[in-house]
Amino acid sequence: MSGKLVCFGEMLVRLTAPQGEMLLQTPQLAAHIGGAEANVAICVSRLGGHAAMATMLPDNPLGHAARDELRRHGVDVSAVKFASGRMGLYFLTPGAVLRPSEIIYDRAGSAFAEQADAIVWATALAGAGMLHVSGITPAVSATGGEAALAAVAAANAANIPVSFDGNYRAKLWEARKETGAPILRKLLEAATLAFIDERDIALVLGATFADRNAAAAAAFQAFPKLQRIAATTRTTHAVDAFSLGATLHHRDGTLTQAKPLELGNVVDRIGGGDAFAGGLLHGLMKDWPAEDALTFALHTAAAKHGQVGDASHASEPQIRALMSDGGKDVKR
Amino acid sequence: MSGKLVCFGEMLVRLTAPQGEMLLQTPQLAAHIGGAEANVAICVSRLGGHAAMATMLPDNPLGHAARDELRRHGVDVSAVKFASGRMGLYFLTPGAVLRPSEIIYDRAGSAFAEQADAIVWATALAGAGMLHVSGITPAVSATGGEAALAAVAAANAANIPVSFDGNYRAKLWEARKETGAPILRKLLEAATLAFIDERDIALVLGATFADRNAAAAAAFQAFPKLQRIAATTRTTHAVDAFSLGATLHHRDGTLTQAKPLELGNVVDRIGGGDAFAGGLLHGLMKDWPAEDALTFALHTAAAKHGQVGDASHASEPQIRALMSDGGKDVKR
Amino acid sequence: MSGKLVCFGEMLVRLTAPQGEMLLQTPQLAAHIGGAEANVAICVSRLGGHAAMATMLPDNPLGHAARDELRRHGVDVSAVKFASGRMGLYFLTPGAVLRPSEIIYDRAGSAFAEQADAIVWATALAGAGMLHVSGITPAVSATGGEAALAAVAAANAANIPVSFDGNYRAKLWEARKETGAPILRKLLEAATLAFIDERDIALVLGATFADRNAAAAAAFQAFPKLQRIAATTRTTHAVDAFSLGATLHHRDGTLTQAKPLELGNVVDRIGGGDAFAGGLLHGLMKDWPAEDALTFALHTAAAKHGQVGDASHASEPQIRALMSDGGKDVKR
Amino acid sequence: MSGKLVCFGEMLVRLTAPQGEMLLQTPQLAAHIGGAEANVAICVSRLGGHAAMATMLPDNPLGHAARDELRRHGVDVSAVKFASGRMGLYFLTPGAVLRPSEIIYDRAGSAFAEQADAIVWATALAGAGMLHVSGITPAVSATGGEAALAAVAAANAANIPVSFDGNYRAKLWEARKETGAPILRKLLEAATLAFIDERDIALVLGATFADRNAAAAAAFQAFPKLQRIAATTRTTHAVDAFSLGATLHHRDGTLTQAKPLELGNVVDRIGGGDAFAGGLLHGLMKDWPAEDALTFALHTAAAKHGQVGDASHASEPQIRALMSDGGKDVKR
Amino acid sequence: MSGKLVCFGEMLVRLTAPQGEMLLQTPQLAAHIGGAEANVAICVSRLGGHAAMATMLPDNPLGHAARDELRRHGVDVSAVKFASGRMGLYFLTPGAVLRPSEIIYDRAGSAFAEQADAIVWATALAGAGMLHVSGITPAVSATGGEAALAAVAAANAANIPVSFDGNYRAKLWEARKETGAPILRKLLEAATLAFIDERDIALVLGATFADRNAAAAAAFQAFPKLQRIAATTRTTHAVDAFSLGATLHHRDGTLTQAKPLELGNVVDRIGGGDAFAGGLLHGLMKDWPAEDALTFALHTAAAKHGQVGDASHASEPQIRALMSDGGKDVKR
Amino acid sequence: MSGKLVCFGEMLVRLTAPQGEMLLQTPQLAAHIGGAEANVAICVSRLGGHAAMATMLPDNPLGHAARDELRRHGVDVSAVKFASGRMGLYFLTPGAVLRPSEIIYDRAGSAFAEQADAIVWATALAGAGMLHVSGITPAVSATGGEAALAAVAAANAANIPVSFDGNYRAKLWEARKETGAPILRKLLEAATLAFIDERDIALVLGATFADRNAAAAAAFQAFPKLQRIAATTRTTHAVDAFSLGATLHHRDGTLTQAKPLELGNVVDRIGGGDAFAGGLLHGLMKDWPAEDALTFALHTAAAKHGQVGDASHASEPQIRALMSDGGKDVKR
Repeated sequence: MSGKLVCFGEMLVRLTAPQGEMLLQTPQLAAHIGGAEANVAICVSRLGGHAAMATMLPDNPLGHAARDELRRHGVDVSAVKFASGRMGLYFLTPGAVLRPSEIIYDRAGSAFAEQADAIVWATALAGAGMLHVSGITPAVSATGGEAALAAVAAANAANIPVSFDGNYRAKLWEARKETGAPILRKLLEAATLAFIDERDIALVLGATFADRNAAAAAAFQAFPKLQRIAATTRTTHAVDAFSLGATLHHRDGTLTQAKPLELGNVVDRIGGGDAFAGGLLHGLMKDWPAEDALTFALHTAAAKHGQVGDASHASEPQIRALMSDGGKDVKR
Repeated sequence: MSGKLVCFGEMLVRLTAPQGEMLLQTPQLAAHIGGAEANVAICVSRLGGHAAMATMLPDNPLGHAARDELRRHGVDVSAVKFASGRMGLYFLTPGAVLRPSEIIYDRAGSAFAEQADAIVWATALAGAGMLHVSGITPAVSATGGEAALAAVAAANAANIPVSFDGNYRAKLWEARKETGAPILRKLLEAATLAFIDERDIALVLGATFADRNAAAAAAFQAFPKLQRIAATTRTTHAVDAFSLGATLHHRDGTLTQAKPLELGNVVDRIGGGDAFAGGLLHGLMKDWPAEDALTFALHTAAAKHGQVGDASHASEPQIRALMSDGGKDVKR
Repeated sequence: MSGKLVCFGEMLVRLTAPQGEMLLQTPQLAAHIGGAEANVAICVSRLGGHAAMATMLPDNPLGHAARDELRRHGVDVSAVKFASGRMGLYFLTPGAVLRPSEIIYDRAGSAFAEQADAIVWATALAGAGMLHVSGITPAVSATGGEAALAAVAAANAANIPVSFDGNYRAKLWEARKETGAPILRKLLEAATLAFIDERDIALVLGATFADRNAAAAAAFQAFPKLQRIAATTRTTHAVDAFSLGATLHHRDGTLTQAKPLELGNVVDRIGGGDAFAGGLLHGLMKDWPAEDALTFALHTAAAKHGQVGDASHASEPQIRALMSDGGKDVKR
Repeated sequence: MSGKLVCFGEMLVRLTAPQGEMLLQTPQLAAHIGGAEANVAICVSRLGGHAAMATMLPDNPLGHAARDELRRHGVDVSAVKFASGRMGLYFLTPGAVLRPSEIIYDRAGSAFAEQADAIVWATALAGAGMLHVSGITPAVSATGGEAALAAVAAANAANIPVSFDGNYRAKLWEARKETGAPILRKLLEAATLAFIDERDIALVLGATFADRNAAAAAAFQAFPKLQRIAATTRTTHAVDAFSLGATLHHRDGTLTQAKPLELGNVVDRIGGGDAFAGGLLHGLMKDWPAEDALTFALHTAAAKHGQVGDASHASEPQIRALMSDGGKDVKR
Repeated sequence: MSGKLVCFGEMLVRLTAPQGEMLLQTPQLAAHIGGAEANVAICVSRLGGHAAMATMLPDNPLGHAARDELRRHGVDVSAVKFASGRMGLYFLTPGAVLRPSEIIYDRAGSAFAEQADAIVWATALAGAGMLHVSGITPAVSATGGEAALAAVAAANAANIPVSFDGNYRAKLWEARKETGAPILRKLLEAATLAFIDERDIALVLGATFADRNAAAAAAFQAFPKLQRIAATTRTTHAVDAFSLGATLHHRDGTLTQAKPLELGNVVDRIGGGDAFAGGLLHGLMKDWPAEDALTFALHTAAAKHGQVGDASHASEPQIRALMSDGGKDVKR
Repeated sequence: MSGKLVCFGEMLVRLTAPQGEMLLQTPQLAAHIGGAEANVAICVSRLGGHAAMATMLPDNPLGHAARDELRRHGVDVSAVKFASGRMGLYFLTPGAVLRPSEIIYDRAGSAFAEQADAIVWATALAGAGMLHVSGITPAVSATGGEAALAAVAAANAANIPVSFDGNYRAKLWEARKETGAPILRKLLEAATLAFIDERDIALVLGATFADRNAAAAAAFQAFPKLQRIAATTRTTHAVDAFSLGATLHHRDGTLTQAKPLELGNVVDRIGGGDAFAGGLLHGLMKDWPAEDALTFALHTAAAKHGQVGDASHASEPQIRALMSDGGKDVKR
């Protein structure tokens, strides 16, 4: 596949309490730039791919810092636009022992939520080999939903394949429940690749499924454009210990699987799914065999759990080194 | 005067860049709890007075932390209420050399802005000896304006004197220009003590004045309830050096003045005016002579410039020590 | 049960070395406010109960900061008194890998140790529904011992039930060995609820017991007022991994047990026992069934292991969420 | 002038001791990316101009981080190359009271020093409107000197004007004294704009001059291509207080001057000269009148003194705001 | 003069609030090792002289860290002894704007205060060329006073000259007022060099003097062994700005003076006097001319104001560089 | 054995990224002083033994800080010399989850690499009971190799036993492959004690061995002076979890083994092998039985994994406490 990956979505500033403290227990917050689609763009760029971000940011130092973080990682920012309004934020209190990590979203009324529809897709998609959107965007606001639909419509019209990540967040959708499923359905109709699991499919199709295989089969039937369905399988042993596997269902009914990895003493689990998407998109855009791409994607997701911040900074050689398991002792 | 000082206004979380850095130049932010009226309440409580806060906070860890900060300093929180919505924030980039400090407000859509009118004033003012409100509150939202008017109306009805701090912020009023002056006028009509200077008076009365004396005279004429007008005189030598004096105009035409203090290597100028208000309210509620109260207030404001954070933590003996100038060398 | 929980004991400032460093390996110390009984008061207040602290603090910024920390968490400080003298301190070097955490106490000659007997119990116990004391207080100094006896005597006289936490610390008792057991005995005689285990009972009764059940039976026999004996069962797997269960023996010979929880990657084990006491007292004061209260208490103790600092900041809903095990993945 | 500004030189990682401490007094160092020419590129890019960097970095995480910092600020990195070798470093101990700041260079054997000559200038200068080099480059190593000469030769051949900053560092030149002046002379011969003062000119021409005017006249005579000579006039009042003026001599004998600014409580003086060069280059490339460009440059240099790090992050509007002196009090 | 300088006194751990904050405003404290006489020993050792410390430290990690800090700076620790007991502490809240720095001492009951008399002076003074003691030691405790007298008696008996620093601290002497002056008198009787000013002399001699000259003359008359009296002249312009001069009175009535230095933006004033003593002792032990030694001492004291921590870390060449005023701009 | 342990090798400043971050992800680095042989010297000194360091450091603040760190821990620095040149550095990015820790060496051209041969061994070995060298030194540079050979020759000539630690680092030896094995062989020929395992022996002897026993037998045959071969057995479970055992082969064919310890949540694995060497050397110099010395050494190595920094700070009693397993719960 040629052309760059264009990711569309809201960017957020994450404000994180120190490890082991409750939010504002002491007056220090660490700031990280995030947002599901920006995480994918940064991940792909760090892996060596060509990624671009299309988004709407507030025209103030916070928005500029978000743009700068994209640039720092080599992401193409020609479709990053600025408008009046506020920066979307979220507060993270990392979990410990029995207490899960907790997120408070504070993204209502953001420049993106209010004006995401001002992006000109003809321009933003110039040179694109793939468009990546997620289910968070329509959850942000009605404007976000319209913008997402406009984006995939423009991509479809230009024969640019669409990647869609379900990324369903219960809290975000609460206020927009009824309008949600139809929009997600339309986005899925436009996609050739989807990061969704049996729960997402059940939600969109309004059905229940025996297992992931059955759900995938139903999704392929419902969405004729869809070629591949990717998903991780996460088992949570503790707030900082997981096992993480992955599946890739193909339209022809075949299934590629990646052997689960055990992840202990996890440093930062946020953005693990985005790193998975980034790793897979990188591999698929490089036309790697499905099994290699999926294993690569799983290791990219795993590596993200060992790095602070929302987006994966790992390079392709670093992921390949993890895959070949050159040993876990100090490299020197 | 007996009874507690009840302060009404929005509370904010301030997020501050490290000294000498641009916002998000590095990913650390210091968090402080602020808000003009809360600063007054904390200041008075720290000085040894009885202060209460009436406000509406989001029912989440940020709102709880704001409440806790009030409690920490001994402020009565029985009129602090919780609602859905977000916490008001602001971002501060401290100035250096030629660059002034810069504030980005992010308070739209806060729990206070949306639901400040849900405070029941009969309850909130029980036991009050004074109500303190400011011009920021009506600038926050229409709801804020209505709540402020309701508060002073309830105070007037209960014969509780009202203190009003103009606190005019150009940026905040921008979107509400036409509605602003009338509301400020109504608040001033209800007040017996006002923290306003010639610019505030000019704005409210739609007139220009030769100097502060003339403005004060006009204000006393326009607002029959008004007994005293207090203001600081700030000369800015550098982004971290000021001289700060104070005036107190009385209805009878007399004027009390406090000799300007030179403030160099200022640590944190935010909240200086609130500390002035707090110091004066403390003195007046203790029935100190006007000159003593004003000098005390000026030193409280000055001390605030040497302490990080929005609210003054100084005790009455600490301010008295500054006033008696026990020397500037190490106390041991 | 109605009325507030009054906790009596010394407050301490803890000074903690950074994780993984020896004390003063680098010149940074984190400060936390602690003290066994204050931890109980803060825990109960954070859980939503009405808690008060009776103590004697130095009349200096350290003592004021200790008082402020109580207020921050909503603890009633009307019985917190100030005197000359020093603040009790302790230094904590957190353990790692094979090395256990280590505490150096530095509390000799504190304002509390010298003047704890100046508290007027008639006043301090006004409105009390329960008095909570611990075995640390008599270990601090002879004055502490007298004050503790005076406190429980006043409570008994006023028909206020007494809760006693053994909290035996070998190091603290070393200098006061002979006088210790008789005082502890007297405190137990006054108590209706005791946080003691078989080792405490053996020490006080000068006997050995086959197991906890036998010890509890002997204690009920020796102390006719005693209604319940609570204790945790801690198994130490590593310096940062424990399993923690709990037992509650009733005077009628019945036994309530809480299923042990596995606690890995523990952030801060200090104050775990105080959180257990706080959780149980909260439940008992709310008249929850014994099993529910004990399970709640155990989860409160467990949650404390995942939070930095001496006192639990968890709310009742947070503990209930842990109990219902809503999953360990990120909450958003 | 059209086309981008291409800056050529070594990039360095600066490691800074905390304010008020001696180097390694405590074990923390702050890292900043610098290097005189990279500072110019970042400054121009932040001001809104189009700037590119040509350099040779080690192919390791330190080199990658240097490249990323350029990207973050929008600098074109298409001519940033990677090679084996080490990253150039320097250690900074900030001054205080009477003690001047002190720098220890640690740049020998760097990838740049060894392989700067591997840059292909035909490619690196494609699209260039100006080439900026400095006298540090030939001081770094013989290879650096050859590369600098190759760069200006390529620029001259392509009719791309050359900007040269003397940037003479006694310590760096020590080992290469005899070869220094001839190389600097050759670089000056190629330049149309030079950032040099009377000391640089005296050194290169081997003569002494009564004042800056006389030196400039001699330089214009010696170097026929030279059109403008820019220099700052720095008076050092204290280790953190300077007054800073600027002069711009024109080939026609006229002189533009910018009124000195008083800079107190300076946060970070490193890179002040590079910010001056960046500000002037930005103005000249925008064809601003000389006086405006020089005043703008001086304010850019001044603003740098109030920001931590080697490179100026100020935007054009921020510098314009300083020039119009909108006041030094908090902007909100 | 040959032989090492033996300094005798208590060592302290200083716990410092962050700049601009009140003590425990946020929960971080910086730790520094101090104590007036240890500061002198470290200063002399850093300057290149041979210095030893005689003291009594608690046999715990705090005491060991104090010993280690001496070793780090090259101080001979063969006369550092360990005993049971606590470490002397003090809490420092740095001043800002109008607020002076404030110290809370917490040294009662320390290992030194209780057991300073256990030092065997015959051993501790082996190889000594000078003994340095201060007036703080007898203020610490009666035991301290006896130990100081024993030390100077042993020195006198062994013909080792004694240096005495008055170091009178009102707060420390409060509890021991009547016993103070006689002990100080005895220490002065034993000294050949004294760091005292007119206030110290007035106190010890129970007289008042017109000026420093008159006081010095009286002191020389009262104390026949005394050869030199050194003192600084400090003018306090602001909490962080001083001018600092120095005088050295000789027994023959002559006076050496060092021209005052202006010290602005002072980083840490604690230990300035000890650095003066260290600088002078270093110069005198090297038999430098009085004027050179005094100017050197004054610059050592001045340099200390620009370095965080209690003891001067400056080397002799660094002080010489300040004296020659090689310029205040960055050294590179 | 009497006399001090003299350790010879290069010292390094380690610059460490924050836990969970990639190198320069954020601009903070922690500095630690290290170097394999200095780690041994510090470890032995902290354990209570008499250790000295012979090395060549740059005559600048970095070199002085390295010397100071040795002094801080009581290491004899009389054979620490200073020369021109740079300080050897290395950058450490701690591993997390699946990602191993990674080291970038930056030690080429250091004062040690260039001038290690300037150490005068007659002086440096005065009073030595043992000389400790490692295989890193000849890997640093040809000069390092010559200096190491000179050192062991001088020790052999003076009948001072030699301890040799193989410490083979693939990356360091890459450029010096062919010259490496012969030098290591000569060093082993001079040694009575060697810290080498089957891989080192295979490399030096150019042979392969069935197991460690066979390798040890061959080494004893090849190197007649060699009396003991010590090695750890490390199993890597995860990047922060190991099991660590140890073997000690004796010339007479007997084998002492220490039971493996499980090390979880490792804080800092760097220097673990040096701590093992230090612990064993300490025990052997104290003539402890082989089994006790080996178990002690293993626990010293284990304890190092729980402490930040390169060198072990543990005291002998602390290691003995770990060996007796006094429990893993808080010590108070």
